[in-house]
Amino acid sequence: MSQAIESIDQCRKELLEEFKAVRAQTKKLAAPLQPEDCVVQSMDDTSPAKWHLAHVTWFFERVILQQFSPNYRPFNEKYYYIFNSYYNSLGQQADRPLRGTLSRPTVPEIMEYRAAIDERVEKFIATVAEKSWNEIYSLFKIGFNHEQQHQELLLSDIKHVFASNPLQPAYLEPVASTSNDKTPFLRNHYLTFKGGLVEVGADNADSSGAKFTYDNESPRHKVYLEDFKLLPRLVTCGEFLEFINDGGYDNPSLWLADAWGRVPSKIWRHPMYWEKTESGWTINTLSGTRPLNLAEPVCHVSYYESWAFARWAGKRLPTEMEWEFAAETLDEIQRDGNFVEKSILHPTADNPVCGKNDMSLSQMFGDVWEWTASSYLAYPGYKQEAGPLGEYNGKFMSDQMVLRGGSCLTPKSHVRTTYRSFFQCDKRWQMTGIRLADNV
Amino acid sequence: MSQAIESIDQCRKELLEEFKAVRAQTKKLAAPLQPEDCVVQSMDDTSPAKWHLAHVTWFFERVILQQFSPNYRPFNEKYYYIFNSYYNSLGQQADRPLRGTLSRPTVPEIMEYRAAIDERVEKFIATVAEKSWNEIYSLFKIGFNHEQQHQELLLSDIKHVFASNPLQPAYLEPVASTSNDKTPFLRNHYLTFKGGLVEVGADNADSSGAKFTYDNESPRHKVYLEDFKLLPRLVTCGEFLEFINDGGYDNPSLWLADAWGRVPSKIWRHPMYWEKTESGWTINTLSGTRPLNLAEPVCHVSYYESWAFARWAGKRLPTEMEWEFAAETLDEIQRDGNFVEKSILHPTADNPVCGKNDMSLSQMFGDVWEWTASSYLAYPGYKQEAGPLGEYNGKFMSDQMVLRGGSCLTPKSHVRTTYRSFFQCDKRWQMTGIRLADNV
Amino acid sequence: MSQAIESIDQCRKELLEEFKAVRAQTKKLAAPLQPEDCVVQSMDDTSPAKWHLAHVTWFFERVILQQFSPNYRPFNEKYYYIFNSYYNSLGQQADRPLRGTLSRPTVPEIMEYRAAIDERVEKFIATVAEKSWNEIYSLFKIGFNHEQQHQELLLSDIKHVFASNPLQPAYLEPVASTSNDKTPFLRNHYLTFKGGLVEVGADNADSSGAKFTYDNESPRHKVYLEDFKLLPRLVTCGEFLEFINDGGYDNPSLWLADAWGRVPSKIWRHPMYWEKTESGWTINTLSGTRPLNLAEPVCHVSYYESWAFARWAGKRLPTEMEWEFAAETLDEIQRDGNFVEKSILHPTADNPVCGKNDMSLSQMFGDVWEWTASSYLAYPGYKQEAGPLGEYNGKFMSDQMVLRGGSCLTPKSHVRTTYRSFFQCDKRWQMTGIRLADNV
Amino acid sequence: MSQAIESIDQCRKELLEEFKAVRAQTKKLAAPLQPEDCVVQSMDDTSPAKWHLAHVTWFFERVILQQFSPNYRPFNEKYYYIFNSYYNSLGQQADRPLRGTLSRPTVPEIMEYRAAIDERVEKFIATVAEKSWNEIYSLFKIGFNHEQQHQELLLSDIKHVFASNPLQPAYLEPVASTSNDKTPFLRNHYLTFKGGLVEVGADNADSSGAKFTYDNESPRHKVYLEDFKLLPRLVTCGEFLEFINDGGYDNPSLWLADAWGRVPSKIWRHPMYWEKTESGWTINTLSGTRPLNLAEPVCHVSYYESWAFARWAGKRLPTEMEWEFAAETLDEIQRDGNFVEKSILHPTADNPVCGKNDMSLSQMFGDVWEWTASSYLAYPGYKQEAGPLGEYNGKFMSDQMVLRGGSCLTPKSHVRTTYRSFFQCDKRWQMTGIRLADNV
Repeated sequence: MSQAIESIDQCRKELLEEFKAVRAQTKKLAAPLQPEDCVVQSMDDTSPAKWHLAHVTWFFERVILQQFSPNYRPFNEKYYYIFNSYYNSLGQQADRPLRGTLSRPTVPEIMEYRAAIDERVEKFIATVAEKSWNEIYSLFKIGFNHEQQHQELLLSDIKHVFASNPLQPAYLEPVASTSNDKTPFLRNHYLTFKGGLVEVGADNADSSGAKFTYDNESPRHKVYLEDFKLLPRLVTCGEFLEFINDGGYDNPSLWLADAWGRVPSKIWRHPMYWEKTESGWTINTLSGTRPLNLAEPVCHVSYYESWAFARWAGKRLPTEMEWEFAAETLDEIQRDGNFVEKSILHPTADNPVCGKNDMSLSQMFGDVWEWTASSYLAYPGYKQEAGPLGEYNGKFMSDQMVLRGGSCLTPKSHVRTTYRSFFQCDKRWQMTGIRLADNV
Repeated sequence: MSQAIESIDQCRKELLEEFKAVRAQTKKLAAPLQPEDCVVQSMDDTSPAKWHLAHVTWFFERVILQQFSPNYRPFNEKYYYIFNSYYNSLGQQADRPLRGTLSRPTVPEIMEYRAAIDERVEKFIATVAEKSWNEIYSLFKIGFNHEQQHQELLLSDIKHVFASNPLQPAYLEPVASTSNDKTPFLRNHYLTFKGGLVEVGADNADSSGAKFTYDNESPRHKVYLEDFKLLPRLVTCGEFLEFINDGGYDNPSLWLADAWGRVPSKIWRHPMYWEKTESGWTINTLSGTRPLNLAEPVCHVSYYESWAFARWAGKRLPTEMEWEFAAETLDEIQRDGNFVEKSILHPTADNPVCGKNDMSLSQMFGDVWEWTASSYLAYPGYKQEAGPLGEYNGKFMSDQMVLRGGSCLTPKSHVRTTYRSFFQCDKRWQMTGIRLADNV
Repeated sequence: MSQAIESIDQCRKELLEEFKAVRAQTKKLAAPLQPEDCVVQSMDDTSPAKWHLAHVTWFFERVILQQFSPNYRPFNEKYYYIFNSYYNSLGQQADRPLRGTLSRPTVPEIMEYRAAIDERVEKFIATVAEKSWNEIYSLFKIGFNHEQQHQELLLSDIKHVFASNPLQPAYLEPVASTSNDKTPFLRNHYLTFKGGLVEVGADNADSSGAKFTYDNESPRHKVYLEDFKLLPRLVTCGEFLEFINDGGYDNPSLWLADAWGRVPSKIWRHPMYWEKTESGWTINTLSGTRPLNLAEPVCHVSYYESWAFARWAGKRLPTEMEWEFAAETLDEIQRDGNFVEKSILHPTADNPVCGKNDMSLSQMFGDVWEWTASSYLAYPGYKQEAGPLGEYNGKFMSDQMVLRGGSCLTPKSHVRTTYRSFFQCDKRWQMTGIRLADNV
Repeated sequence: MSQAIESIDQCRKELLEEFKAVRAQTKKLAAPLQPEDCVVQSMDDTSPAKWHLAHVTWFFERVILQQFSPNYRPFNEKYYYIFNSYYNSLGQQADRPLRGTLSRPTVPEIMEYRAAIDERVEKFIATVAEKSWNEIYSLFKIGFNHEQQHQELLLSDIKHVFASNPLQPAYLEPVASTSNDKTPFLRNHYLTFKGGLVEVGADNADSSGAKFTYDNESPRHKVYLEDFKLLPRLVTCGEFLEFINDGGYDNPSLWLADAWGRVPSKIWRHPMYWEKTESGWTINTLSGTRPLNLAEPVCHVSYYESWAFARWAGKRLPTEMEWEFAAETLDEIQRDGNFVEKSILHPTADNPVCGKNDMSLSQMFGDVWEWTASSYLAYPGYKQEAGPLGEYNGKFMSDQMVLRGGSCLTPKSHVRTTYRSFFQCDKRWQMTGIRLADNV
C-alpha cells in the first residue's frame, strides 16, 4: 500500500474493512459451538476455543492499543496475563495446561471483550496519527494473519475435543463424502523439475508491508537445487492403508530412531482419527465419523509417519526449497485449492482439471499441509527482531519441521508459495499429509 | 421404616419426598454456576460440576432402574460409560482425567437427563412391586447418601476451580468474615476420657435400613481404649501459623518420611488456599479471598501436615475409635454444627454455648473433617459385598486415613458418630482440619 | 544384661563378641560377590551391595564413635554424606538413585573402611567409660540389628540384580529343589483361636535392653480380639497358580482400587521372579532358575496380590495382632524355621513335624514374611524419640503394611513374636508371602 | 587401497595392524579404571565403560565374523542381545537404562571376550577369501571408526561418572592448567570468507574405501553460500562468564522457546562441570577439579546455550557448510589440533602459531566439537542403506544438530573437514563448544 498514491483516509478505510472481515470470520467459525465446547482443552497441544477467541483479541489490545493509544487503560489487566500465549517480552504468562482450567471469563464475557476491543480498534484506526501509520499498519497485518492462524487452530482443536468425546459430537452437519472409490484412479507419473541455482524466499525489501509475509520467509536468497521429481498429487488414504497392511508400523527399518524408540510413536497403529471397526476402517471428521475414503489424501500423520511411509515407498519427502520452487511454477488460478472458504473442512480426492492423464501439479495448496524434509531454521541473513515480534517466529527455530501449502482449514488469503508453517515431528492433530519426491 | 406398621403407600410417599429433596438440593447448589464453570476439571482429583450432576443421576438409573424396571431402556447408552465412576461390575469406565475433556453433554442436556430420570424414578417408586421394596429401599438410601457425598464434592471441586483461576471468581457473594480476632480466646484445657473395653461401629443387624449406615461402619465391635485426652475444639489458623513461623515446614524431624521426601509435600509452605501477600496472609474461600482469620479452624491441611503439626505441638491425632467414643458422649443437640445447611460454606471460630470457660466438647460435627490417626481398614467381621455395592467402600481400604465428623460443606443428615470418611495422606482440597489428642 | 551381677569386663567381652559375629556374617554373605556385582542398583528400591557394606559401618561410626569417642576424626568426612540413608538429624544425604552411580569407593576401599572402623570400635568397646555403658550398649544393640536388616536387604537386592541380568548369574551354586510334587499334601484345616481381651507388643520397661526390641514393638498393650482362624501353613505356589489360572489377575472385583488402577499392578501377571516358558513355569532363585515347585510357599507377592488372593479364596489376611497372639502359643522350639543360617535362601514346603495330619501351626517363623491386614501405625502410648533413633522406625508410619515372622533371608536371632516389619502395598522384591485367616 | 597395485597379503597385513592399533588404544584408555568404575551408568545418555569395551567387540563379531566366517559360533549368544546398541536389523536389544544394571559379565570376563574376538578376527583377516575382500574391508573400516567413536564416549562418560561422585575421583593425575590468565589476549577480528556456489561433502565414488568417510558425509554436492565471517578462535570461558554475569540465563529474549520452557534448561545456570564456590568458579576435568581458566575454550555447553550466547553477542553460529568451506582452506598441518593423542583431555587456550596478531583460523580441529546452526539431515542424493549400516547414521536424522571438528577426546585420524557429528539440542556431556559467525 503505497502512501504516495492513496490518501490516508482510503488506507484507514481499507484497513478497517480487513479488520472487520477477519474478526467476523472468527466469530462465524465459533458460531456452531456451545459454551461448554469452548472451555475444553483436550490435550496440552490444544487450546480451548474461548481462549483462542480472547487471545487474538489480546493481540490487538496488548501489542497495538497498549503501545500506541495514548493513556490506554486495559479492558481487564488480568487478561494481559491469562491471554498471553508465549510473549515473554509482554510479561508473564500462565502455563499452557492452565488454559483448560479457566471457567471464567465465560463465553459471553469473552464476546463482550471482543466487542469492546473491536470498538476501540475501530476508533483507533480512524484517528491514529499519520506518522505512526506504517508501523501500525505492519502490526495490524501481523494481527490479521495471527488471527487467521488461530482460526485454523480453533478448528483443529475443536476437532480434537469432539473426537475425544465418546458421544462424538460433530461441528458440521454430516455431509455426503466424495464417493468411496475403492480403486480410485491415481496419477502416478512423477513430474520432473530441472534444478540449478535458484532463488527462494520472500523479498522483504518492500517494507510497506503491502504484500504481507512473515519474517521467517525472508530474505529471498539463492539455493542450489539438484534436479528432482514430485508426485503431482498427495498420497491417499488407500496408499497409506497399504503401508499399514504391509506391516509398516511394525517394521523398525522404516522408522527414524526417535520415532521408533519413543512414546507416543510406539502406540500409533494408524493415522490420528482413523479407527478399525468390525465393518471396516472409519475416519472421524468435523462432520462426524464416516467410512474411510481411500481416494482422499491421508491426513493427521506426523512427520515420523510421513518419513516412514516415504521410505517404505522407496521415495522421500521434498525439501521446502523443492516444494517452493515447484509451487512457483503454478499460476494464480492453480494456487487455489480446498481452503476453509469452501466449508468442506476435510481434504478431498485429487481431481485434475483437464482429465485423468493430466500431468499438472495439483493439491499443492489447500487440502493438507505437506511435511517437508527441511528443518525449520533461519534463512541466510535472517535477523530475529527484538521484542514481541522476534518471539513470533524466530524463537521456534529448533526441533521443528517445515510444512507447506496450507490445508482445508486455512484461509486462502493466508498462504502463499513462500509460507512456512512448522511443527514438531510427532505432532499430528493438524491437517498434515504427504507428497512424495524423488531424485532424478 | 418398619413395613409392619406403615402402609406401603406411606412408604412410597416418604421415599419420594426424600428423593425429591435430595435432588432439589443438588440443583440448588449448582444454581450459581455458569455453564463454563461446570466443564472444568482443575486437577485429576476433582471432577467437573456437570459430571457430578450426571453421575449421581446415573447411579439411580444404572443401579436401580436398569436392574429393577422391566424392559428398561437407557436414556443414552453412552452415558452408562462416561458417567460410571469406578464400578467395574457395571462395565468399563472412562479414565478420570477424561472427565474434564467432555464438552458434551452440555449443561442443559444434563439437566434434561436429570429431569427425565427424575420422572422415571418417580413413576418407578409409585409402581414398584411390594416384594422388591426392601431391596430397592436400601438402594435408594445409598443413592441419596451417594448424591449427598457428591454435593460436598461439587462444592469442594468448584472451590478448587475458582481458586485456580487468576480472575478469582467467587461462588457465594462475599460475606463479612467472623471478626479477625488476632488474639482469640482459645480453650486449651484437654478433656479426659476414661477408656476400657468399649463398643464402636454401627449395628447393621437392622437390615431394614431404617437408620442408614454404610457397610464400612459395621459391624459394631469391641475395642479396648486406653484413657485419653482431647482438645475440646479444633486447631485454629493462628496456631497453625505459629507452626509455620516456627519453621515447621522446614524441619524434617517433624514429618513422616513419605511427606518429607515426596512432591508435592516438598513444595507446600502453608495450607491450601492460603497466600502470603504484602499486606498479610489471605485465605481463598467460596466467597472469595479475604484476610486470614486466626480464630477460625485451620482447613485444607493434609494428613501429613496434621501429623507434623501434632508432633510439633507435642501431641498426637486421635484414633478414629477415640473420636467416636468421645462423640458418643454428646447428645443430639450437641451433634449439630456448621453444616452446609447454614450456607456459610466455611469453618467458623469456636463458640462454646455456655461461655468461655465451658469445658464441653465442641466442633465435633461440621466445620472441618478431622484427620484421625487410623488407617481406613475393615472392621473385624466386615464382609465386602460382591457387585457394585462391594465396590462402594470396600475396595478403597488401603493407603487412606479415616476422617470424622463432617464439614461445613456436608449435609447435616449425612453424618453421624460412626461415619467414616477417608482420603489419602497427601490430599487437602477437601475441608480437612485438625483436633489434637494426648495420652493421659 | 544386668550390670549388678556381671562385671563390666564381662560385658565388654560379650558385646565385642556379638559385634565381631555380626560383622563377620555380613562379610561372609558378601563373599560370593564380584566387585562388579557390588556396584549395581537395579531399581530405586534396591541399594548396591557395597553401599550396604559401607552404610552399616557408617552407622557404628556416625551414631556411636562420632558421638561418644572423644576428639573423634572421621575416616572420611564425605562418607558421612554418601553413606547416610535417611537420617536428617545426622546431616544431608544423597538421593537414593545416586547410590548406583558411585563407582568409588571401590569394594577394596570399603573393605578397608570396614576394617578400620572395626578396629576403632573394638578399641572403643574396650575403653569406653562405665558411666556411658548403658546408653552405648543400647546403641550397639540397634547397630547389630540394623546390620542384620541390611544383611537381608543385601541378599534380596542382589537377587534382584542377578534376576535383572539376561545372563542370569546365581549367588549360590544350583541346588536340587525339594521335590516338585504336583499334588502336594496340604493341611487345609484352619486352626481356631479363642479371642478376648489380650496383651500384645513388647514390654520396653526393661530399659537395660537385655532383650532387645525396637521401639515400634512397644508398649505392650491390651487389644480385644474376636475369635479367629488361621491356616496352619503358608499358601503355596500351587494354590497361587490356581488363582492365576482362574483369571485372578484379570478380575477387578478381587482387587483393591489402588492395585487395579495403578501401574505397576496393571502389568503384573504373576509373582515376581516367576516366568511362564514353553516347558512350564519357572522361578528365579538365588541358586538360579528352576522349575516352579508347587508345594513351596508362594513368595515375592505384594500386599495387593495377597489381598486379592485372599478375597478370591473367600478368606482374609490375619491382623498383626491375631498373628502375634497365635505366635505366642508356640514354644521356643516351634519358633525356629527356615532362616538364613540354614543357607537355603529360598522358602521350603510345609513339613509338619509329627505327620501329615498334624494340627500344629507351622512356618510362622522363617520362610517368608507374612503380609498382615494391619497398617503400620503407632501402638497406643508409643512415643517417637527425637534424634536419629526417632527416625529409625517412627517416621515411616504411613502407607505401609505390617509383615511378621521373618524369612529364609532373615537371621534367626533377629525376629521374635512382637517383631514388626513393614513395606508399601506394591513392594514385592522382599521374601513376602501369604497366610490366610478367617472369622469364626 | 588399490587392489591393483598391492598384493592381498600386504592388504591383510595393513588391515591387521590397523585393527591391533585401534584395539590397543581402547585398552589403553580403559587402563586407569577400577572394575567398579566400569559398571556405572550415571545417566541414561551415558553407558558403562565395560559396555563400551564389549559393544565395540560385539560389532566385529556380530557384523563381520557372524556374517562372513563360515559356521561361526558366537562367543556367547546372550552377548548378541546385551551388547547390541540399537541395530534392529541385528535382533532385539536391551533398553538403554539396563546397561547400568548389568553386573556381569565382569570386567575380566569382558577382557577375555575382547581377547577371544581379537584372536578370531586376526585369524579371519589372515584367511578370508579374496573375493569378499572389498566388502569386508569396508566393514572393518567402519568397525575401526566405530570403536574410535566409543573411545571418545568412554572418556566423556567416565568424566560424567566421576563428576557425579561426591568423592570426585580423577581419571588423570592432576595437571597444571595452562595459566589462568584473567585478561587473556583474544583475537577478535572476524575472518571474511567469500561465498558463491561451492561444493561440500565427501566424494564416495571411490568405493574401495581407501579414504574412509561415513555415508552421511556424502554425496559431494553443490551449495550456495553467501559471504560470511568467522571468529578465528573458539569462544572462551571468560566470554561465556560475561554472558552469565550479564544475566544471560535469566533473559528469555535470548533463548529458543524449547530451551526456555523445558527442564533441564530451566535449571541450568552455567556450563556443565562448572561450579561457583566461595573462592571463585571451578571446573571439573578428567584431571579433577581446578579453578576456571578464563582463556580456555568454553566446553560442555548445549546447542541451546550456544545459540543464546551467540544471540547475546549479536552474532550467530556458523552453518555446517560455512564451517566446512572454511576448514577446506586449511592445509594438512593446520588441521592438526588438541586431539586425544596429546593426552591433555581438556581444551586449551588459543595459541596462534605466528604471534598475537595472526589472522589465521585456529582451533578448527580438536579442543571442542563446534555446534553449527545446521540440523542433521540427509544431503541431496543421500540414500540410506538397508540393513545394519543403514541404521548407523541415517535413522538419526531428526531433531539433532550437526557438530564439526572433533575434540580433545577425539582420535586425530577420526575426523576430517567433511565429518559430521550430531547431538540433540539439550545435550552437553560431550566436549561441545562455540565458534561464532556473522553475516558480511
